[in-house]
Amino acid sequence: MSFIDKLNWRYATKRMNGTKVSQEKIDRILEAIRLAPTSFGLQGFKVIVIEDQALREKIYNNACHQLQIKEASHVLVFAANKKVTQQHVDGFIQNVSKTRNIPIVNLEGFKGMFAGIVAGDANQNFTWTARQTYIALGIGLVAAMEEEVDATPMEGFNNEALDAILGLTEQNLGSVSIMTLGYRDVAVDHYSHAPKVRKSKEELFEFK
Amino acid sequence: MSFIDKLNWRYATKRMNGTKVSQEKIDRILEAIRLAPTSFGLQGFKVIVIEDQALREKIYNNACHQLQIKEASHVLVFAANKKVTQQHVDGFIQNVSKTRNIPIVNLEGFKGMFAGIVAGDANQNFTWTARQTYIALGIGLVAAMEEEVDATPMEGFNNEALDAILGLTEQNLGSVSIMTLGYRDVAVDHYSHAPKVRKSKEELFEFK
Repeated sequence: MSFIDKLNWRYATKRMNGTKVSQEKIDRILEAIRLAPTSFGLQGFKVIVIEDQALREKIYNNACHQLQIKEASHVLVFAANKKVTQQHVDGFIQNVSKTRNIPIVNLEGFKGMFAGIVAGDANQNFTWTARQTYIALGIGLVAAMEEEVDATPMEGFNNEALDAILGLTEQNLGSVSIMTLGYRDVAVDHYSHAPKVRKSKEELFEFK
Repeated sequence: MSFIDKLNWRYATKRMNGTKVSQEKIDRILEAIRLAPTSFGLQGFKVIVIEDQALREKIYNNACHQLQIKEASHVLVFAANKKVTQQHVDGFIQNVSKTRNIPIVNLEGFKGMFAGIVAGDANQNFTWTARQTYIALGIGLVAAMEEEVDATPMEGFNNEALDAILGLTEQNLGSVSIMTLGYRDVAVDHYSHAPKVRKSKEELFEFK
């Protein structure tokens, strides 16, 4: 299948059949998420990977009772940093220094580019870090598709409830989106046969 | 190359060599962006695809003089709807009806789900539509990678200036991000050889 054929094969799966996704496939999907680019490379987020059924039941009760939460193999919650702190920046700069073998002192100028962000207000910070998580979400969806694993991007949940259930608030994180991973149950998921609805090329693009 | 190897091959290319990307490759990258999922499938955004050099010069002057704007083959500007209107929703519902052959009257319940969004304030709407564009940005980056085309996701530009230059404001759109497409100039782009800096698996993920 071509890349475009695979994108047409994937869809937001609403019913899954409970089959577990192999650890090898999960590892590659997570590695793709880890490699997703972010602004400056800061990666101002964390991904909670959930298999525990009791925890999923709690999420289900706060996610409009969408069955894929319970029927999936794994539930991934993308959570963005509520506030970008100097500690984040220092950790990032240390990682750049170590990975690229550049003395910290030579990264002072680069580090200075974050001063405004750290001094900025939390709402602005979260707007920014939350957006970045959607790049990783998009790449995670494609990575799952490459593994012939179904994936559902989701926003319909009570963010505050999830933050409490997963202990995110005390980690300076806020839940942003969910991605369930598993296998489609074609017998019960009406959407598995539904044609994809998209704007035409003429509507979506403007050429200059 | 495996999917993970390709993700390691790609990087935010800062210098491009001016070589044009073939129309076939551009078409497939745009098709991938068109197929990217969005919340409800609403696709509350537009992508401006720019080749015109004079227009790129104006963007360059409002994008921190980042050279890839001028050296790329194509510059894509992702712009999200500032306000979700009833007109958007009606157009979308008509598209669902036509594509899936469902009478409009049977889609009234689904249509009703958008009432709160249309009644909501513009800031909330834009927060939501802007996030969705990053899924398409992420999938566009991967589509480029599959075509062995270099792509750079960018945020460092003056949004208001771009909105004016591209006539976005009067279209109820706000610029959110840029993706340049082209080919890396390894002779001058120091980053083409730099190891990728990423958080470790242990830092980025939490398993439950």
